[in-house]
Amino acid sequence: MKMSMYQASVPRLAAMLENLSGILDKAQAHIDARRIDVAVLMGARLALDMYPFAKQVQIACDKARSVVARLAGLDVPAYADDETTLAELQQRIARSIDFMRSVPPERIDGSEDKDIELPVTGKPTRYSGMQLLLGHSLPNVYFHTVTAYNILRQLGVPVGKRDFLGNP
Amino acid sequence: MKMSMYQASVPRLAAMLENLSGILDKAQAHIDARRIDVAVLMGARLALDMYPFAKQVQIACDKARSVVARLAGLDVPAYADDETTLAELQQRIARSIDFMRSVPPERIDGSEDKDIELPVTGKPTRYSGMQLLLGHSLPNVYFHTVTAYNILRQLGVPVGKRDFLGNP
Repeated sequence: MKMSMYQASVPRLAAMLENLSGILDKAQAHIDARRIDVAVLMGARLALDMYPFAKQVQIACDKARSVVARLAGLDVPAYADDETTLAELQQRIARSIDFMRSVPPERIDGSEDKDIELPVTGKPTRYSGMQLLLGHSLPNVYFHTVTAYNILRQLGVPVGKRDFLGNP
Repeated sequence: MKMSMYQASVPRLAAMLENLSGILDKAQAHIDARRIDVAVLMGARLALDMYPFAKQVQIACDKARSVVARLAGLDVPAYADDETTLAELQQRIARSIDFMRSVPPERIDGSEDKDIELPVTGKPTRYSGMQLLLGHSLPNVYFHTVTAYNILRQLGVPVGKRDFLGNP
């Protein structure tokens, strides 16, 4: 096995979202058992000026899907940010994983120096493919996945680092 | 620039720890301005059964340093877990970065299939080099760095995602 742009992206991003999906299953079981309104969980935050749980999951999916599309030179599939249940967030995760896995490795490999421009906090920002993947997209996917996990953890949902790490 | 085991590890792990160091600077300024006992911050947690802030920073450093050592076939530098101040955590971060940057790229490149065994939650676990880096170490470094960030964020330390991401 050789390290490559594909190896460092699709399998790892898909694994992160699969682990997140397993974490959401546990969250669903937790609120079901306690008859908790899912809206309470969807809107839960670590701080008043941080994004709520649902948005953390949305962004994790978007950052994963978009870097794969951009490296492959494909349009980024756009999804409405309208999920109100964990089941709907699960669909977003599944669609994002399906999209990523549909991209053949040869469209991603060799994209290290590809010139990519995207808006970051409103400003057009240029990256090389490798810089985008390693310095922007992976950190963002981890950032929002871990924050979603931390929200659940603080609320007492029985998840652990094993759920986050999954199978290496 | 070509993707490689080195490119995916040392520069990125070092950048993560450098960004964490900048975040700790802001935390220091925040507690200094309010005359807050640093022990309160070092022991802060998101949940009673999660590690406190200081431990999150320690583990982030350890997971970064140890994967670089293992890929390079070097002994993992061991540090005592005895920091009681942010300045001491800054030293741990700086020592970890210095160690990582001291390892020449050619000792890391080509380590994809290297057979590496380490204890994970007490059990000896085998990884290939690439699997260890992408599936264990990077996720762990991000996990503990983001959790340290989230603790500060929840406590009102004025940090933002820009501080976490740094320069891609």
